[in-house]
Amino acid sequence: MLEDAVDAIASLPGVGNRSALRLALHLLRQPKENVHHFTDAINHLCDDVRYCRTCMMISDSDTCSICGDHSRDHNTICVVENVRDVMSIENTGQYHGTYHVLGGIISPINGTGPSDLSITELVSRIAALTKDGNEVEVILALSGDVEGETTSFYIYRQISQFGVKVSSLARGLGFGDDLEYADELTLGRSIINRQIFRP
Amino acid sequence: MLEDAVDAIASLPGVGNRSALRLALHLLRQPKENVHHFTDAINHLCDDVRYCRTCMMISDSDTCSICGDHSRDHNTICVVENVRDVMSIENTGQYHGTYHVLGGIISPINGTGPSDLSITELVSRIAALTKDGNEVEVILALSGDVEGETTSFYIYRQISQFGVKVSSLARGLGFGDDLEYADELTLGRSIINRQIFRP
Repeated sequence: MLEDAVDAIASLPGVGNRSALRLALHLLRQPKENVHHFTDAINHLCDDVRYCRTCMMISDSDTCSICGDHSRDHNTICVVENVRDVMSIENTGQYHGTYHVLGGIISPINGTGPSDLSITELVSRIAALTKDGNEVEVILALSGDVEGETTSFYIYRQISQFGVKVSSLARGLGFGDDLEYADELTLGRSIINRQIFRP
Repeated sequence: MLEDAVDAIASLPGVGNRSALRLALHLLRQPKENVHHFTDAINHLCDDVRYCRTCMMISDSDTCSICGDHSRDHNTICVVENVRDVMSIENTGQYHGTYHVLGGIISPINGTGPSDLSITELVSRIAALTKDGNEVEVILALSGDVEGETTSFYIYRQISQFGVKVSSLARGLGFGDDLEYADELTLGRSIINRQIFRP
């Protein structure tokens, strides 16, 4: 019984057997209601999760709270690798456009190609916006490593046909730094000082 | 929804908001069955946990697997602070007696007195064993800090009336070291080289 719980907790990334035992015994000392609240929250997340049809962000419904917010600039699309990056940029409070979550990054080593990402959806989205005569800006907010640059370049080639403004994050981020570990000030500035993408 | 899960995970000791988000997104990428297995194991542990009537160890039933094992020496009782210590000593493979889990240590600073621990149960257990004419040995396997020494001395005074052999772990452990962080070799040796308790 204890072993089952410890094994289950130790299956989480970065949690070893000793930490898992410590966490299991911690949960055992909590009131049962707290433990049930804990497991219910996780079950609810995994059972009822949906993704925004527009931007692929995690959402309670078919449209996420950002895409459903009319006060935001829907002609500015910030392209990010994953959900964490959306939350990192939202935490800076510096960005008022919308997002597009790729769901990964082009990485031949990990076997992730363009078709594994939501690039087709991004292209359709831009096509629809430009067809309506909107001035669209696409911000490529990917990490500053080789895979990020490759993905940016690939997306740039896919969307340049629409004549949209394409920018990338200001290189306040060191080359090779991972986006999610940047502090909020650096990330906020790199959103403000974003630059025209010149491949 | 995601926030609820992240908050729930971040309520665990030693897990910050970023780690909690990382773990929540990890769970989200797993098959639902795995997540349900994970939450079921935790619920099962917290809902159905029982404690061995003899040694107070976590158990599926009223008698734990160690106290129910007739191949073990029931006249040797290793007194430990908590469940983790039982598992640490079991992992050494060097001990074949039984245990007694105190459920804490005497600590005036933390407000833990002798009556908060299962010392009365230990005394009754030793009384019953000696009444039957058994030669009993009690190993005081508590941490080598002041609180551990105080608790050892308190227990020694409670049980010396029964004329049992009282030993303590060999001081291979550095003074002040926490028992649960000792490596298995050191801990195993300190079980083998246990010494008569001389207060």
